[in-house]
Amino acid sequence: MAREISPEAENLPPGAIEKVVIHRVTSDSKETAEDIIVREFPLTILLNGQELVTLLCSPADLKYLAIGFLYSEGLLQSKENIKRVIVDETKGVVRVETKGIELADTDAVFKRLITPGCGRGASFYSAADTGLEKVESSLTVSGTEIFDLMKTFQHRSLIFRTTGGVHSAALCDNRNTLIFSEDIGRHNAIDKIFGQCLDRNISTNDRIILTSGRVSSEIIVKVARRQVPLLVSKSAPTSSGVKLAQELGITLIGFVRGTRMNVYTHDQRVTV
Amino acid sequence: MAREISPEAENLPPGAIEKVVIHRVTSDSKETAEDIIVREFPLTILLNGQELVTLLCSPADLKYLAIGFLYSEGLLQSKENIKRVIVDETKGVVRVETKGIELADTDAVFKRLITPGCGRGASFYSAADTGLEKVESSLTVSGTEIFDLMKTFQHRSLIFRTTGGVHSAALCDNRNTLIFSEDIGRHNAIDKIFGQCLDRNISTNDRIILTSGRVSSEIIVKVARRQVPLLVSKSAPTSSGVKLAQELGITLIGFVRGTRMNVYTHDQRVTV
Repeated sequence: MAREISPEAENLPPGAIEKVVIHRVTSDSKETAEDIIVREFPLTILLNGQELVTLLCSPADLKYLAIGFLYSEGLLQSKENIKRVIVDETKGVVRVETKGIELADTDAVFKRLITPGCGRGASFYSAADTGLEKVESSLTVSGTEIFDLMKTFQHRSLIFRTTGGVHSAALCDNRNTLIFSEDIGRHNAIDKIFGQCLDRNISTNDRIILTSGRVSSEIIVKVARRQVPLLVSKSAPTSSGVKLAQELGITLIGFVRGTRMNVYTHDQRVTV
Repeated sequence: MAREISPEAENLPPGAIEKVVIHRVTSDSKETAEDIIVREFPLTILLNGQELVTLLCSPADLKYLAIGFLYSEGLLQSKENIKRVIVDETKGVVRVETKGIELADTDAVFKRLITPGCGRGASFYSAADTGLEKVESSLTVSGTEIFDLMKTFQHRSLIFRTTGGVHSAALCDNRNTLIFSEDIGRHNAIDKIFGQCLDRNISTNDRIILTSGRVSSEIIVKVARRQVPLLVSKSAPTSSGVKLAQELGITLIGFVRGTRMNVYTHDQRVTV
């Protein structure tokens, strides 16, 4: 690829990228060049002193990722459950201590943790299985508002523009991006958003989540848990994603490209 | 998106897709339309009678996916370890019985299974951790051969062209695609290839793996385990992907676009 290293790369968070020497090859040439690649960082989460999981992630917002992950897994229910969070960036460890929440034993937690993998998990196949409440919201958005939000969203992804290697997610209202995150994993990018919401008491009611990634059942479950009524993806949904969004009262929009998009479920929230 | 349902969709494997009624929205219109989405299928693997994991996958080549997954996890070492494989497509269950291989207890297996998640796993950060041998191969390929293979690869992805929702992978020699697979998960698509290789005694030595997905450390570990010397991606690698490829003797090529590509490691196998 004829990608040049852009001056923007200088503004990236420290540690988000690495410079490497590569060979650029075409049909009739082979030249050394410098390239930028996205960093893959192992983050181990210790819950109440016990090693729980190691996530492969982008090394930013580690506290938010840890909190968001535990929340998505049902291991935290509110900010009040968090006693202390200690981030050790050098060792790649986040220690979370909780209170006021009954945790299952380690084995059960581990079995549950297989769930959120990307095409690697036992997920939920009906709204009843999830134990989640249907999202109630009278939010409406216009097509134009969604197209504008997605345009801003795509312009904002600095690491993607530089490396081509990350997913992004954002929490928005009808006009503004409230929180933005990037990560090598599409699940992580959304967990970072929700972790920040929990930590900073930012409401997700009547708001919109944007994602660059495909929408499978696990993504819908995360969004439903935070009672977000509208999920917008640049990309495709799966059949279980559409089924769960329908059952859980979420408006699912996919394939937003320029001024066209597909509304898969609960289109009453989308006006022209 | 103005995507029409193509006549090609009629040739897709049964169950790979679903038709849904959606709303197509533009800046000034909202119309109902029929759309095709990719099916998300839960496949539970029982190993010697014990429930091991449920993978979210595309419902094709389930036997190969189960075998490939167990191989990638080190729970199978060769075809001789497979006593019996029974696929129940209706229930979404594959029962695999093994022989001649020492398996760790369930807890250890579960802990290990957290590994392969997409950005959800404790993976390997140096070649020494993987316990894998460096890939030795005198294979060379020309830029033109790679560009031709990738062109065929991209044309072949029928489900992607129809739904935009899957990843693909292929095993190739310098000129031909030997095995091709598609799945909603980029890990699954590669496991399906290697499962088929194991089951049908197809050698992976001196061969090439093509993938549509990003290359993180887990993908390199899968490829190294099968001693494949060359991995080619349409997309970006991560820093750990590049580091492991370097250490494990794998030529890693990314961003193949038309007649340009980036060679990240072991460029001696790429000629002009």
